[in-house]
Amino acid sequence: MEFSSKLIESAVNEFSKLPGIGKKTALRLVLHLLKQEEIFTTDIAQSLTEMRQNIKYCKKCHNISDEEVCNICKSHKRDNSIICLVEDTRDVLAIENTSQYNGLYHVLGGIISPIEGIGTEDLTIDSLMERVSTPDSEVKEIIFGLSPTMEGDTTAFYISKKVKQLGIKTSTIARGIPIGGELEYADEITLGRSIVSRTTYE
Amino acid sequence: MEFSSKLIESAVNEFSKLPGIGKKTALRLVLHLLKQEEIFTTDIAQSLTEMRQNIKYCKKCHNISDEEVCNICKSHKRDNSIICLVEDTRDVLAIENTSQYNGLYHVLGGIISPIEGIGTEDLTIDSLMERVSTPDSEVKEIIFGLSPTMEGDTTAFYISKKVKQLGIKTSTIARGIPIGGELEYADEITLGRSIVSRTTYE
Repeated sequence: MEFSSKLIESAVNEFSKLPGIGKKTALRLVLHLLKQEEIFTTDIAQSLTEMRQNIKYCKKCHNISDEEVCNICKSHKRDNSIICLVEDTRDVLAIENTSQYNGLYHVLGGIISPIEGIGTEDLTIDSLMERVSTPDSEVKEIIFGLSPTMEGDTTAFYISKKVKQLGIKTSTIARGIPIGGELEYADEITLGRSIVSRTTYE
Repeated sequence: MEFSSKLIESAVNEFSKLPGIGKKTALRLVLHLLKQEEIFTTDIAQSLTEMRQNIKYCKKCHNISDEEVCNICKSHKRDNSIICLVEDTRDVLAIENTSQYNGLYHVLGGIISPIEGIGTEDLTIDSLMERVSTPDSEVKEIIFGLSPTMEGDTTAFYISKKVKQLGIKTSTIARGIPIGGELEYADEITLGRSIVSRTTYE
């Protein structure tokens, strides 16, 4: 694409560096910015820059936070005996939105993936081990809230072996047919798994 | 969605003001920015702000430009006797990319749409009339490069009535079956139109 303006070209190029935004979408966004007041664009720019420059990560759970320790880790209402292990901040948000979990989190920052060159040392596993092995740790259970992929399972397996030595119970979120999902459209592996790990009526 | 950080919340809100970007996509973009170096974000922010603050519109054709008069209007290689009338800058880019047109453009800045409250006075129609009625105007034909919608046709009809009084020829880009398109999947109106305005072999 050839642009009549270097300014547009540079803005389009910058926008299209973002994931899922191609040149055409970038141009649509740039032209939208031009149609709005100048303050609209400066607000976006300022907000992004401030966010990037001032963001902190909770030193306990590595979740994104505005302070040294995040609101969840600080809260007195949360159950300190359970930690849910997740890949990134998005998963924390997703689980928090269910209102079904009242424990703490630990954000790994990724999952073990030899293909992408992510090893155990790139994740916050050491920090987790430290967290659960301090004398005043109340942690009794670690829930693996990881994606049901090869990489997710490998990560869970690696960590569960480590924490079991400390006498901590491990579990994983249930895999099965999604609620509202139709049985006939479920893939074979999910369906098979849902039979093997069926829930007994009490 | 509840965020653990006000900075993230504000960045997500700003991003999701853009068209086609919802809260979930905005969050994905924000988390992507966090994974990159800080310079990545500041580059985007700076580029957008500079673009918005310094962009000009060509005083002849109203296309986006870095200078008072755009490269197309300034060029000696373009045919000054034809003007292609388009809705916005994106259309200029699209037509330029075909390399099939060597005339000038006039960007209307929209099309007449009573529903959206866009009237003739909101468009650059007066400027077009001025442009074609000056004594040194060489314009002999105006091509309507507008979308084949009710609004596009209304706009074309309104303007063609005005410029015909000046003895200027008007035409519209061809409507028909897209090249590579299959006849059986074409809608009835397009197919009907393509028969009525068929091209005679010479």
